[in-house]
Amino acid sequence: MAGALPVSPLAPAGFPELPVIGGVRFAAAEAGVRYKGRTDVMLAVMDPGTSVAGVFTRSATRSAPVLDCQAKIGGASDSGAAILVNSGNANAFTGRYGEESVAAICAAVASATGVPQGRVFTASTGVIGEPLPHDRILARLDTLTGALAPGAMEQAARAIMTTDTFPKGSAAQVEIKGRAVSIAGIAKGSGMIAPDMATMLVYIFTDAGYDQAALQSLLAELTDRTFNCITVDSDTSTSDSLMLCATGAADVDATGNPAFAEALHGVMLDLAQQVVRDGEGATKFVEIRVTGAASDADAKIHAMSIANSPLVKTAIAGEDPNWGRVVMAVGKSGAAADRDRLTIRFGDILVAENGWVSPDYREEDAARFMKGQELVIAVDIGLGAGAATVWTCDLTHQYIAINADYRS
Amino acid sequence: MAGALPVSPLAPAGFPELPVIGGVRFAAAEAGVRYKGRTDVMLAVMDPGTSVAGVFTRSATRSAPVLDCQAKIGGASDSGAAILVNSGNANAFTGRYGEESVAAICAAVASATGVPQGRVFTASTGVIGEPLPHDRILARLDTLTGALAPGAMEQAARAIMTTDTFPKGSAAQVEIKGRAVSIAGIAKGSGMIAPDMATMLVYIFTDAGYDQAALQSLLAELTDRTFNCITVDSDTSTSDSLMLCATGAADVDATGNPAFAEALHGVMLDLAQQVVRDGEGATKFVEIRVTGAASDADAKIHAMSIANSPLVKTAIAGEDPNWGRVVMAVGKSGAAADRDRLTIRFGDILVAENGWVSPDYREEDAARFMKGQELVIAVDIGLGAGAATVWTCDLTHQYIAINADYRS
Repeated sequence: MAGALPVSPLAPAGFPELPVIGGVRFAAAEAGVRYKGRTDVMLAVMDPGTSVAGVFTRSATRSAPVLDCQAKIGGASDSGAAILVNSGNANAFTGRYGEESVAAICAAVASATGVPQGRVFTASTGVIGEPLPHDRILARLDTLTGALAPGAMEQAARAIMTTDTFPKGSAAQVEIKGRAVSIAGIAKGSGMIAPDMATMLVYIFTDAGYDQAALQSLLAELTDRTFNCITVDSDTSTSDSLMLCATGAADVDATGNPAFAEALHGVMLDLAQQVVRDGEGATKFVEIRVTGAASDADAKIHAMSIANSPLVKTAIAGEDPNWGRVVMAVGKSGAAADRDRLTIRFGDILVAENGWVSPDYREEDAARFMKGQELVIAVDIGLGAGAATVWTCDLTHQYIAINADYRS
Repeated sequence: MAGALPVSPLAPAGFPELPVIGGVRFAAAEAGVRYKGRTDVMLAVMDPGTSVAGVFTRSATRSAPVLDCQAKIGGASDSGAAILVNSGNANAFTGRYGEESVAAICAAVASATGVPQGRVFTASTGVIGEPLPHDRILARLDTLTGALAPGAMEQAARAIMTTDTFPKGSAAQVEIKGRAVSIAGIAKGSGMIAPDMATMLVYIFTDAGYDQAALQSLLAELTDRTFNCITVDSDTSTSDSLMLCATGAADVDATGNPAFAEALHGVMLDLAQQVVRDGEGATKFVEIRVTGAASDADAKIHAMSIANSPLVKTAIAGEDPNWGRVVMAVGKSGAAADRDRLTIRFGDILVAENGWVSPDYREEDAARFMKGQELVIAVDIGLGAGAATVWTCDLTHQYIAINADYRS
């Protein structure tokens, strides 16, 4: 599937120049798990002393690799770590066989890299319910370890793509205690996007040092403001995994440093928004800003109700300023709202207030606004100080085309 | 929009022959609220002694007519009742002007029919947020009252259509205490279908007598098993209204009669399923049966999660037996599940059990099954005795086409 689709019109101009992160090396290879003629396995190996944090899908039907990673997160960081990811097959709902695949891969990676098996993390993304032909991956392990290189992060980003139309990367640099620290991450994701914890596959690396437990807290907190604020189609993957590795190679401890947290937030938000920009069939990137809700939690419920409404998303696809559907989505969300206190803006255009269309509203202004590729829809609930911002895309014919025959 | 679309391939062969319900008369007219060249207003007038029950959307942005109806339900039944419905404009999110429209219509209908204003119920369906040109309706009131006839129920069903591709009617007859009792109902609905109480517009009439309070309880109970078990697109209307009128003309009190409740359930389920069969762009009618859940409530959460999943619905549109997406939808629902206890059947085909694909499963069998127009997907959660069945349709290109330019 990947490669067959035209690149999303919302894609960035190109893959960003990522800084080399000291203490981690990457490699990618063609294992032929499912796709032909492209890379489909990536390996990352981190030096001893690396702290590893991770957040994962809350799905009750989590994949075997996710369960294995969850059991391992939080372990000692003095022996290095490794991450192996394949695309084309999710190794999800594959019963006992799925667990055997994970065990076989972890054992082989441990043996090939010298990293203890308890510090080898894996992920698989692609079709659910088919056995993972892990022998094909094991057969490429020597190639992978032989190719490990500090600068091969873009190759890793390409190897984990499924229906993605472009590889996703982001980076930031920040000075901490007089030392330069780099953060760089990659992500994949395009459909089945409605994170309930982390979403999709995301791997972020930094050469800062960071206390293991504090890193886990920071990652969870920032995930709630980034990856948990995006949705393409309201469907939540069985495989969502987000890992953050702090190698310490820059020789500075960033634990608790606000500048580091801010830079990391920027990288995570950029990657999350890139996933939306590659939403299956997307032609519009939409920011939904809800303010004035009874609480932040209520604001997010309203925002996600708007962002997930098929009628709102198809209206956006049709460039129709159908704000009545925004009213509908607020009304059905289940969070507190008062019809007569709502204020709705499309960009700078005041559309509705006090329970009805604004007297100054002219549909032709809104229609012109809707032709843009980047849209902001702002709703003030008029009840309190709760706020949330989420990001989504439109729902188009191409989404149907991609998903009505993904496996065919 | 209505009339421009081809009739749904899932439509019944034709509109059913409905029995005449003693004690109620119908009329329809062309008021030109929005549509041209078709009827868009219906009036029903019930004799004194009619009990009227109603359930309505729980949306926080309910329309003015819904709020008015909710205030009136439960009133005395000794002076008759009337229902006026227009299509083309929902009179929702229209502020003070919306309330004035409702008041003007109720006053005029009361004056034209002799029914007290507190027993005049209205509904409006169509575009949200535009003022209802109620003068056009008032101008047709004399025509409507002059045309009132006991057998004009199909005309009423046609007048309330919006994006519906066929009018919806259903009837049952049942003997109670030696007397023949008839039940007949009409419905409209096609998109914005994910009832959270009643859904869409539904009007059911019977010539049985029935205690007012008991009728309300019966209607609410049966709604939970019919209209609250369907979904087209997970979007809940601001205007959903379901009313049940028992005229008593058959001179028999059906209060508490199980045969009556069963017949009424049949009519409601038929109408609810017809709404799904007219789901915007639908080409498949899908029954989702969930058993073995921890509770009935959990079963319904799982069933609705499957029925609303865009990825499940597009797979069905593509005739792809992608049962992995069913696993995904169970996993994300939030209700209790254990990956390794799930059993999934497509029709009679055992697809998956014990956390993996069944050893006897052959994809070609499932692919053949998916070509059918009426599909049953059954999931046993393996945890308890909770069960629920819901009905939905597939998600197709035509849904996008209809909704990307509904207002244009």
